[in-house]
Amino acid sequence: MKTKITEVAKVKLKNPILVEGLPGLGMVGRIAVRYLVKTLKAERLAQLHSPHFPYYVLVNKKGNVRLLHGEFHYWRNEKGENDLILLTGDSQAQTIEGQYEVAESILEFAKKHGVKTIFTVGGFRVETEEAPKVVVASSNHDLLKKAVEAGAVVSGAGNPVVGTAGLLLGLGRFKKIDALCLLGETRGYLPDPKAAKSVLAVLQKLLGIDLDLGALDKEIEKAEKIVAKMRQIEKRRELHARKMRKMEEEKVTYIS
Amino acid sequence: MKTKITEVAKVKLKNPILVEGLPGLGMVGRIAVRYLVKTLKAERLAQLHSPHFPYYVLVNKKGNVRLLHGEFHYWRNEKGENDLILLTGDSQAQTIEGQYEVAESILEFAKKHGVKTIFTVGGFRVETEEAPKVVVASSNHDLLKKAVEAGAVVSGAGNPVVGTAGLLLGLGRFKKIDALCLLGETRGYLPDPKAAKSVLAVLQKLLGIDLDLGALDKEIEKAEKIVAKMRQIEKRRELHARKMRKMEEEKVTYIS
Amino acid sequence: MKTKITEVAKVKLKNPILVEGLPGLGMVGRIAVRYLVKTLKAERLAQLHSPHFPYYVLVNKKGNVRLLHGEFHYWRNEKGENDLILLTGDSQAQTIEGQYEVAESILEFAKKHGVKTIFTVGGFRVETEEAPKVVVASSNHDLLKKAVEAGAVVSGAGNPVVGTAGLLLGLGRFKKIDALCLLGETRGYLPDPKAAKSVLAVLQKLLGIDLDLGALDKEIEKAEKIVAKMRQIEKRRELHARKMRKMEEEKVTYIS
Amino acid sequence: MKTKITEVAKVKLKNPILVEGLPGLGMVGRIAVRYLVKTLKAERLAQLHSPHFPYYVLVNKKGNVRLLHGEFHYWRNEKGENDLILLTGDSQAQTIEGQYEVAESILEFAKKHGVKTIFTVGGFRVETEEAPKVVVASSNHDLLKKAVEAGAVVSGAGNPVVGTAGLLLGLGRFKKIDALCLLGETRGYLPDPKAAKSVLAVLQKLLGIDLDLGALDKEIEKAEKIVAKMRQIEKRRELHARKMRKMEEEKVTYIS
Repeated sequence: MKTKITEVAKVKLKNPILVEGLPGLGMVGRIAVRYLVKTLKAERLAQLHSPHFPYYVLVNKKGNVRLLHGEFHYWRNEKGENDLILLTGDSQAQTIEGQYEVAESILEFAKKHGVKTIFTVGGFRVETEEAPKVVVASSNHDLLKKAVEAGAVVSGAGNPVVGTAGLLLGLGRFKKIDALCLLGETRGYLPDPKAAKSVLAVLQKLLGIDLDLGALDKEIEKAEKIVAKMRQIEKRRELHARKMRKMEEEKVTYIS
Repeated sequence: MKTKITEVAKVKLKNPILVEGLPGLGMVGRIAVRYLVKTLKAERLAQLHSPHFPYYVLVNKKGNVRLLHGEFHYWRNEKGENDLILLTGDSQAQTIEGQYEVAESILEFAKKHGVKTIFTVGGFRVETEEAPKVVVASSNHDLLKKAVEAGAVVSGAGNPVVGTAGLLLGLGRFKKIDALCLLGETRGYLPDPKAAKSVLAVLQKLLGIDLDLGALDKEIEKAEKIVAKMRQIEKRRELHARKMRKMEEEKVTYIS
Repeated sequence: MKTKITEVAKVKLKNPILVEGLPGLGMVGRIAVRYLVKTLKAERLAQLHSPHFPYYVLVNKKGNVRLLHGEFHYWRNEKGENDLILLTGDSQAQTIEGQYEVAESILEFAKKHGVKTIFTVGGFRVETEEAPKVVVASSNHDLLKKAVEAGAVVSGAGNPVVGTAGLLLGLGRFKKIDALCLLGETRGYLPDPKAAKSVLAVLQKLLGIDLDLGALDKEIEKAEKIVAKMRQIEKRRELHARKMRKMEEEKVTYIS
Repeated sequence: MKTKITEVAKVKLKNPILVEGLPGLGMVGRIAVRYLVKTLKAERLAQLHSPHFPYYVLVNKKGNVRLLHGEFHYWRNEKGENDLILLTGDSQAQTIEGQYEVAESILEFAKKHGVKTIFTVGGFRVETEEAPKVVVASSNHDLLKKAVEAGAVVSGAGNPVVGTAGLLLGLGRFKKIDALCLLGETRGYLPDPKAAKSVLAVLQKLLGIDLDLGALDKEIEKAEKIVAKMRQIEKRRELHARKMRKMEEEKVTYIS
């Protein structure tokens, strides 16, 4: 078995742009692209299966079973120049060689549909509490400039962009596909819809579409409650540890 | 070398159903399918060898050596509509890609023999002390319904089914083979014949055959004795640990 | 690159038997086969290279560099029926799939030279201080019987024979080559010439040749001195640890 | 995807010698070859990409993204007999099989350009504070002799040369390419320009070229300051640890 992409709809798309967001740091890419699929009511286009995905199947609410997969949706942009192909999914490839194979399959599929530009979405680890910035890197200078105009910040040198979100940029060159990567700042421990929202704010300008991002706020609120709770637990644990250390020190002092 | 299946008997089977149970959690699948082979006096059909199995050979009582393998047996169902192909073996594939390759080989072999339905058997980890339930998931809704009528409980959403038992369901779709997975609840630490018996109770109804499951009771008794002994040991260890902690605390109290 | 065997001599051998001893437990196989090569003054036949061997090269005394390899030597048996092919080397394959590929290459090479019987040599871990027994397992009952007559003990059931020494037996069946494995009992921590000597004692009877095994005694003496020294060190470490534990316990007793 | 080398210049070189220095111990090879590229103003020849490199892309100061790669430069030697091909890069292959595949690709590329001699450069771990020696090993005795005349020391027996720097020597034989490895002694914890300088001092004699190595001294100074600082930190940590142990011992003495 090789990585393969199976089309479930035969469509002809107008100058499509591919937007990729697979699971990764803070699930930023996946949350963002799933939000696009839902909000734009994008339709199913194709599925990607790979022997480099984990070797289990998922069960849904009805007891129905399916392989892990990547999912392509398409959206016809009635008002703009570029239709969209949206790629998200359950997993990234689990081995080095698998990562390259999956990225190449995606690029071949994109090429076949006439894609000339790819936007990839992911997370960028920071420990800050500030509003998450959107970091951008690209294989094309003009694209990069547009992203900066749309509110993104150019990535510092030396940052690696890991996984499919990065390889699509690197390998895209061999297929003459320009690509740009938008990374939402995130602590990355938990799914981070706030970072995804920042990315979407930039992305909609780049794509020239108008999204209602309000629906993400409920998700953000939920996520922040979880984070707040986890911090409380952490704080208590720290207090306890400090107390224990103090006791230990006093004991040493006492003895010596 | 690729994964390969070598037939040792040339037979024409009547609408065969494949039942798979390879080693896994609590050895539930393997115990169940081996029991079927023995009770039904199924005959040898084929062997599966793979370079993804561990790289050692096994020695039997007579000093005879053989590769790890999967074994297919067949059983002619004189009274019912479906003959059976029973698959069990020594091991599962050891790498991600190997898991996919082995599952695909099994499906090709099944297709060749006209298999339209596969039942896979495995374990499902729970910590309960109650009678083990049988959890079911399927790629086909009608099959699922039948399993529920036979006493199984529909799996909760999000449970992964790992290994061959899962991949046969996921990859089966590409070959138009419907598949259903029966997972016996088990703590999973040790071979669990009780969980295997629960699964067989459901399976015999699904297959429309009548098995004497009594012979498993001796195995169950043995297994339960081992578990009881292990718990005693664990309990003593805990008591000891608690005592040590207490001593340690008193010492701290005393000093500070 | 694939695993490949390059011949360095073109010879026609008389009913050759292949004797394999690659690095493994206690280096038993390697010591035994190297001893055969040296004592019989066997000549170079071929080299095996593989991309599954570790990715480094070895430097010899003169600063000369070479890849890790397996080495085949041949020996013309003027008095007996079977010439010998002797295989030893630097390493075993490092991955599961590599192990199968290397074993298959060896078998193809053997087949090409008309080999009908293979003897593999390795170590078998035991903690005993007694004279090392030689454990035997085989894919052919008659061979096994001969080995027992030559002084070997039939392996208990369930012992895995790991690596090339095992796979040649398991995979040999597909090429209709009978094979037998001789495992010298060893603690396995260090190169164990004593275990190798036991194996050679059995092997020479099986091969119907007469070896002077005395030259191994110096190696054995050296190895035993090292073991004795290591035990002393271990003993001292244990004594020290016991003393520390006692101090710790007294301290607890004192306080509580 | 396979490892592939893409030429960016079409040139005909005069008896070229390939000098390889990829990342490794103390970054000795990479520092040395990058220095050659810069000092000789070598020009870009080709790029090597591989699915065995880590699966991320690098971002430069301008936010531009690229795959990890190996880079070939060429230098026309107006005064001497041999032009140079210089190979350095971002990474080595990450798997065993990948290491062999990458080394083979390099050798094929070298062969195509008429390369008959390869020099590889790396680090050799020692704990000494003395001026770093240059250790040499080779697949060709005459080359080795020349390196010794140029100031290198023949490697002791048993030293493995790991990675591309080693495999090019071992695999070079199959392509009839002689190769020599120069290893600069280094503690290996940090990039070590001093070791690189020692190697370059030998290398320039071997190549019959005259390099100004002075520009490396600033790098060396910087590196030594970092090492000095790290040692201070280590020393303080040790002092602290010793103090803690003493306190602990006194406490024990006091109690018992």
